[in-house]
Order: sequence, then C-alpha cells, then structure tokens
Amino acid sequence: MLTFDTRPDRYHHWKLAFDGPVATLSMDVQEDFGLSPDYKLKLNSYDLGVDIELADAVQRIRFEHPEVHTVVISSLKERIFCAGANIVMLRGSSHGWKVNFCKFTNETRLAIEDASEHSGIKFLAALNGICAGGGYELALACDEIYLVDDGNSAVSLPEAPLLGVLPGTGGLTRVVDKRRVRRDLADFFSTLVEGVKGKRAVEWKLVDRVFPTSQFKDAVAKRARELATQSDRPSSGPGITLNPLNPTVTDSDVKYSAVSLTLHRDKRTADLTIQAPSGPQPSTPDEIVAAGDQFWPLRAFRELDDALLRLRVNEPEIGTVVIRTEGDRDTVIALDRTLAAHHNHWLVREVVHFMKRTLKRMDLTARTFFAFIESGSAFAGSLFELALAADRSYMFHDDNEENVIALSPMNFGPLTMSNRLTRLQSRFLGDDAKLRELEAHDGPFNAAEADEHGLVTFAPDEIDWDDEVRVAVEARAAFSPDAMTGLEANLRFAGPETMETKIFGRLTAWQNWIFQRPNAVGDKGALKAYGQQGRPEFDWKRT
Amino acid sequence: MLTFDTRPDRYHHWKLAFDGPVATLSMDVQEDFGLSPDYKLKLNSYDLGVDIELADAVQRIRFEHPEVHTVVISSLKERIFCAGANIVMLRGSSHGWKVNFCKFTNETRLAIEDASEHSGIKFLAALNGICAGGGYELALACDEIYLVDDGNSAVSLPEAPLLGVLPGTGGLTRVVDKRRVRRDLADFFSTLVEGVKGKRAVEWKLVDRVFPTSQFKDAVAKRARELATQSDRPSSGPGITLNPLNPTVTDSDVKYSAVSLTLHRDKRTADLTIQAPSGPQPSTPDEIVAAGDQFWPLRAFRELDDALLRLRVNEPEIGTVVIRTEGDRDTVIALDRTLAAHHNHWLVREVVHFMKRTLKRMDLTARTFFAFIESGSAFAGSLFELALAADRSYMFHDDNEENVIALSPMNFGPLTMSNRLTRLQSRFLGDDAKLRELEAHDGPFNAAEADEHGLVTFAPDEIDWDDEVRVAVEARAAFSPDAMTGLEANLRFAGPETMETKIFGRLTAWQNWIFQRPNAVGDKGALKAYGQQGRPEFDWKRT
Repeated sequence: MLTFDTRPDRYHHWKLAFDGPVATLSMDVQEDFGLSPDYKLKLNSYDLGVDIELADAVQRIRFEHPEVHTVVISSLKERIFCAGANIVMLRGSSHGWKVNFCKFTNETRLAIEDASEHSGIKFLAALNGICAGGGYELALACDEIYLVDDGNSAVSLPEAPLLGVLPGTGGLTRVVDKRRVRRDLADFFSTLVEGVKGKRAVEWKLVDRVFPTSQFKDAVAKRARELATQSDRPSSGPGITLNPLNPTVTDSDVKYSAVSLTLHRDKRTADLTIQAPSGPQPSTPDEIVAAGDQFWPLRAFRELDDALLRLRVNEPEIGTVVIRTEGDRDTVIALDRTLAAHHNHWLVREVVHFMKRTLKRMDLTARTFFAFIESGSAFAGSLFELALAADRSYMFHDDNEENVIALSPMNFGPLTMSNRLTRLQSRFLGDDAKLRELEAHDGPFNAAEADEHGLVTFAPDEIDWDDEVRVAVEARAAFSPDAMTGLEANLRFAGPETMETKIFGRLTAWQNWIFQRPNAVGDKGALKAYGQQGRPEFDWKRT
Repeated sequence: MLTFDTRPDRYHHWKLAFDGPVATLSMDVQEDFGLSPDYKLKLNSYDLGVDIELADAVQRIRFEHPEVHTVVISSLKERIFCAGANIVMLRGSSHGWKVNFCKFTNETRLAIEDASEHSGIKFLAALNGICAGGGYELALACDEIYLVDDGNSAVSLPEAPLLGVLPGTGGLTRVVDKRRVRRDLADFFSTLVEGVKGKRAVEWKLVDRVFPTSQFKDAVAKRARELATQSDRPSSGPGITLNPLNPTVTDSDVKYSAVSLTLHRDKRTADLTIQAPSGPQPSTPDEIVAAGDQFWPLRAFRELDDALLRLRVNEPEIGTVVIRTEGDRDTVIALDRTLAAHHNHWLVREVVHFMKRTLKRMDLTARTFFAFIESGSAFAGSLFELALAADRSYMFHDDNEENVIALSPMNFGPLTMSNRLTRLQSRFLGDDAKLRELEAHDGPFNAAEADEHGLVTFAPDEIDWDDEVRVAVEARAAFSPDAMTGLEANLRFAGPETMETKIFGRLTAWQNWIFQRPNAVGDKGALKAYGQQGRPEFDWKRT
C-alpha cells in the first residue's frame, strides 16, 4: 500500500537547503530507491516516489519556512538536471498507474505555480545540465528558467518522437500558453529528440536566460535574491511543523482524527466522513500559529487530502464515495469567518490555499462523489464545499426541519476550482443574481429551502430517503467506470477553461487516449520498443 | 470511396420545405439507405450519410435561401424525433471511423450555431416525440427546444448508462455550458435511460417549453414566425445555387478547378495545392451574386473543404499534407479587400463565414500540415491563413527576394479559429504590439522579413531548401501517428477555450479514450453487448 507521508530527513531523492530567503531544492535521485525494484532511476529520472518528496518539500516550504521567498530548483548531478519520467517504470505500469502518476505530478507542478501566484514564493529553475521531458516540464512550472550554456545542456520534449506519447505533465500546454512559444516553433521543438540549447532556447522563449558554466552559479544566486525581494512573506519565521498524520489503518478503514474512510469493496463504494470541530477554536493569527498543524481546518483538510490520494492509488475499484459530515456546523462557520477575517496573515493564507488545493484534488479524482446530508450533519461553509464538489447531493427532508446546511464567506471567493470560479459560480453559471441572493441570505437553509435554492440535488423525505439513496448508489456502481470518469470530467468543469483545466482536460485526455493505443503500449508500440531491440511498428492510420 | 456531395432532390433522410421566412427540415430516415448494408437506420437513427445531408441542407439554406430566417428541425415519424446515432453502425465501426463520424457531426451542429450567431438564421427544435442521445444533441445545437407533452416524449442522453460511452456530439458540454443545466442535475439526467419529460424538462432547462399534442404544431409555427422577425437577412431572394464540384478523381489525384490533391501513399504524404485566381474579379455585391458559386473565394474554399473531408475519411494513412499556393497574390488581396468592404452584404457574409469554417475544418483535421512557400506562390491574405493554420511553414529564401507573402484585412478579424482568436492572435498570443505592427506593415514580406516577423517557421536558402524540407517531411511521416495527433490537438489551440474548443478538446478527447477502452469496445464491453444476449462485463478499475 502506497502512502504519501514523508519528510525531509527521509527523502531519498531531494536535498533541501536554506540560506535566508532562498531555499534550494536539489534533485539527486538515488537510482536504487524507486518504488519498485523493476527499474533503476538513472540520470535523475523519476517515479511517483520522487514526486511525492517534491510535493512534500514545496508544501513544507510554505508552512514551515515563511522566511523563504525564492526556491531554486536544481540538480546535484553533474551535467544532468533531470531526464524526465523513468521510461522503464512507464513501460511496466498499468494504464491506471500511468494516469494516476501523471495526475499527481501535474498537481505537484500546479502547486508550485499556486505558491508563486498566491504565497509570494518565486521558483527559479537552475538547469545545470541536460533537461529532458518531465525534467523540462518541471522547469516550465517555475517562474523563470536559467540554462547553463556549455555546448551540451539543452531543454527538450522528446516524448513524441522517442516514445510515441505526449509531454503530458503540462508540457505542451505550458510551452504555448504560459511561455507563449510560437506554436510552429513548439511543434518543431516537440519533435526534436536532442532539444534546443543556448541562444536559440532564449530566442524561442523556451528558457529565460543562458550563462556560461563559469557564470551560471552566480547568476542563479543573484536572480534568486532579486526575486526574493518581491515577496510579501514575513522576513523571518518561525513556521509551523507539519507532523505525520498517522492514521489507523485496517483492511477496511483509514481513520484519522477528523476524517474516516471506510471501504466496502464488495459494493465498490466507500464512506468518507468528516467530523466538524467542537469547543473553543483559535480566533487570532497568534492562536492559529500556536495551534499549528492541529488547527482544525488544516488538520481536517490534510487528512482529507491524504484519504483522497490513498483512494486513488490503492483502491482503484472503489467507484463511488459517499461523503458525510458530522458535528457542530456553527463552529465550522465561526472558523470560516476567522479565516476570512485574517486572510492576509501568512499562515491563514496558506491554510486557505491548502483547503482550496484539497478540494481541487477532489474535483480531479476520478470517482463518483455523492454527498448525503443527514440529520446531525455539518455541511456548512467550507464543509459545504464538499457537497458542491460532489456529483450529486441528497438532503434528508426531516419533518421538523432541523436538518440544515449553511453558507459562509468561504463559499463566495477563496475556494476556487481550477476554472477559477467558485463552486457556486460554476453551479449557477452566469446567474449573478442568484449568487447575490445566496450571499445575502441570513441563516441556514432547511431541506425545502436548500432544494428551492438549488443548493442540493434532491431532498427526499423519510418515506423515500432509504430507497432513493440506496438505488442511487447501486445504480452508479453498475455503470461503466470509464463512462462515469468521462462524464464527470466534463460535467464538473462547466464554464471557462484555464491553463490548469486545459492540462487536465485537453492534454490529459489526449494523453490517456494515447496511453491506450497500440502505437504506444502495444507489443510493437513506441513506449514498449524504446531502448529494446528493434524499432517500433506503427499502424499508420491517422485518427 | 465516400463523397460529401449531395443536394435536396437526392436526400434520402430529410425533407426540406419552405414557407416564406420559415424553412422546415424534417428528419425521415429511410432505414434501408444507410451507408452500409450491415445495419438498418431504425427510429430515425443516423449514420454519417444522414449527417452529410443535414450539413448540406443547412449550407444550402444559407446560400440558396437568403429569405429564410428560421429553420424548424422536426421529424416526420410519429412519436419519434430521433433515436440518436445508430448503435449497430457504431458497434461495427473501426476506431477511426467512430472518431471521424463524431468529428463531422460535431462540425455540422456547430455550423448550425454559426448560422444562428452570424447569419441571422434561428433554429427551433420541434421535438414531436422521443428524442434520445444524438437526437437530443442535435436539439441542443438549436436556439430553442420545444417538446411535445404527451406523457411519453422525453429528451434523454442514455449513452453512458446504456452503451458505456459519452454523449460526445457536444451533449455534455452544451447541457452545462450552453443551456446551463445545473451540473448535478446534468449528472442525474445523463445516467437516466428514460430521460426527462414534461414540466421537469423545462424546470431543469433541458428544453424551453412543452405543449400538449393538440397545441404543439401551432406553438411551433407561432414561435418560428416570431424568431424570423429578429433576422437581419433579406426579406426575399434570390440566393445563389451551389452546384456540384465534380472533381476529376483518379487513383492518386482529386483535381478541382482551383484545388488539387495528389496522394503519395507510399510516403504517406499528400500535396494540396490551391491556385489563386487571375483576371478581373467581381468587386460589387451584385457582381458577386451574379458570379454565384463561381466566385473564386467560395469556389476555392468549397473545393478545399471537400478535399479535406475526402482526405479524412478515405485516406487515413496519409499523415502529412504539404500545402502550396500558386498564382497571382495581388488578385487574392484585391478579393480580400472586396470581401472586407462588403462584409455586411448577406452573400459576402456567407462566403466569409464559409471560408472561416473551412479553415476551422483544417485546424481540426488530424493530419500534419506543412506549408511550403516557394517561388511563384500566392500565400497572401486569406490564402496566407493556410500557412498560419499549418503546423509549420517553410519559406524559400531566394537570392533576388521575389518570393513574398502578404497580409490583408482577412488576417486581422473575420477568419477566427474555434478559440475565437484569429490565427495571428493565436500565433502571437497576448502580443498586441506585434499584431498592430503587422497590421500597419505596408506591402509584402520577403523571406528574410517574414522570418524576422515570425510569420514563417523557417526560411532556408537555396543551399539548404531541398534537404531541409525533405527531411522535415520524412521525419514527420516516421513518428507515431497518434502522438502527432495529440501533439497537434494541443499546440494548435493555444489561448482561450470556448464551448466549441471544449467539445473538440475535453469532450472529444475523453470520448476517444473511451472508444479505445475494453469496457466500451471489448468483446464484453457495453457498446458490443447492447441489444445482444447478456449484459456487459466491466473491469471495475476507475481511471
């Protein structure tokens, strides 16, 4: 069973060093420490384990090191920055593993961009050597790219010509949409195994600057310090510590402090329940810093994030997840108001953006989510986002109207989806009057009101509830899992597309198609043939 | 060999009737006239042949009937509007055929929306009976949907629950993005085999209005007349006639009057050459109407459109198309200026939008296009769009600098891509200064200037030309065809996404993935199992 818990003193593949406002994250992949013994991670090539450490490092810099304003991403290997995703690993992976691997690595790179946009941390890719495929895709996620000009070091996206697949970790999208490389040059570049180096790499906007070897280190250091001056982060710490989550894991349960995941493998369903906090909660930045990773919004969403990741990689046959909440909704609303009131404080800002990223992770998880809003539930404010993120919500219409939901400022701005709309904006696309009406609404909504306002999908009463929710779950679990994945990937993202949604929609969907095609994964396909005897054999039909 | 030429007196499946400003296009599919004898087109189900007639009808209404302001789309079958794409046809089709079928039907529905947005023709879907799957997707392309309320007639998207595939002809996208059905209701609706009818269909925004059988005809007729009054089209004809193209077809050539397509099947390449006009050209609306379908911009782009469609369905192994132009570029520029000057005239408007749609067809054709700009070429104005639509352009840098390209007003507005940007805007994404500089440029660009301005990819001189273009074509033809399709589908659409690009990007890419998945197309897959003995058997892993 794969887990996502790690910390710097356990990293195999990255070194994290701090020098005042500049952190340096250096790739130094240990080839014998891949997740599987079937491959060696040569030349700073990576697998999911390497990326879990990278994601952890970026996260810790945000929470544990508020004094860091610039992160330099480089490599400790001579003349090699990164050779990209490990090809033997890709070749040996199941379709589902490939898809999950790409999804997580995409989320990690988007988390880098999220830190740059929202947290005042700039990322400088210092390419001290060959930078190929996924290596260049990591560089593309940084704000700026510096490349050593040593006559040999180049950036490249050789996936299509060498392996018959796409640079699918955002590569094609970021080249034209973020760096605005001209599409015809991008086409040429993406078919060039050897890549582009030196002055041409700058002219084509593939990198920002190149420097001879003798000047490279100084130029990187100088620019890192310059970038650091632009930050609005504190000039000194301390941060908070992200301690291990340590859930209790049995064959059918993963139990955290505020989140529990129960698997029903025979039915291919799971129950995911989030417990609202109770008692007094921190209400000032100082109290929040003192609470650290035990501050409920951070603790609960870290647990939720971990549960979603475990579900993705360890339980592929669980198709439908029923989400419930329990506890005191007023405390959730009060915490939401605290978050909103202090959103400019560096830690509060980090907590809110982490909640946002966790909810995005849910939007991008290829499982059906149904929210069941039952008596005693706490679907309020940020927890109500779970119902809005779900594919459907069922709210029990009790006779005495005590079962209620509630909105908070957290539903009207901070927790945007990858389309940059809130979930309410996506739900009521273009209907600004409805959003204003909801924002002006005072107090909670009972089931009839929630139904009337379109905040829940269905509100069955006691006579219908049991049958209706049972049939909904059973029917869902019987449909083609692929059709449900495609359905949800389309219906969840109404409205505008962004670079981020393009990466998960257009680019990923085409990559997943290619990952099914015999020209890539068949016995004679390019991904199978690479590095083996013989050349690939293609079915030449264009589709 | 499939051709796309048809006309109303040859239609098998549609009846086109005219009553002043209202045309009625009635589906009456003849089950024995499918493109293949392997299936019967029961219950107004359709195959590509039915859609070719629909596309032709919409096109003819635009050009031949300027007096038509509203089109009612209905059915002549009792209690059935349309059962959607024929399932036996889909089941028996190759992957490539499915993909091409969906692409063409998507283009047809987008042409309906293009006519509504740009040509003053409103479309009213009059659903006189059951409207399922692709039938409802056709209705979604109309401006308004009226449904008979007879206790039986419903709209539905049963693709996912019945067949394990998506409503991929824009269905999922239009439901949430165009009609703004709430995503959770859309989720429920898209898993409901029997669909939604009556008042609920209106409440959920799936249709605009419902009427009892006794009032349906009158309500449709009344609304059709109301919609007609909003049009800016002429109140009376005559239009022009779209005569058959009648190309000369041999085993290796398709030769039209201004376009020729030569196939080199051994190299998996084709040459596509467009001949610029010469001599005096019409310069007033009256002269253009008099020229009719022989007006060069209409004639040449009709031929180009036909060549692209033939290439798509008849020559799947041709992976790379080299585009050339020949003739007098000044005449092209002069014609472009005429089009720009008279763009408000109904026929000029139709010609320009048809040119736009043809170029979009090229953007969406899954073949590599390289433009070769050689001595004697006529890549000017609207013909230069072919070089901008190409994945790369190679311009011969002649010593005497006589080989030139030129821009016209047609490069700066009317010929938008499906992302609603011009090809120059997509090429120089966000660089408005560059666009202004190009617009202000007086006269043509020689090879050095075109290269300097980023208007061409490469400009080899006489020493390099032959080798460079030969190697480019040979290398391209050797890559995985699937990787090239995915690469082009990403790099061609930098910048914003629209409902149209979402249909071809997000929705189509997921559908194509599903069309490769054993859960749909395997021996026990849902598409194979439907209507046969036994239920589908799924691999339950979620991806």
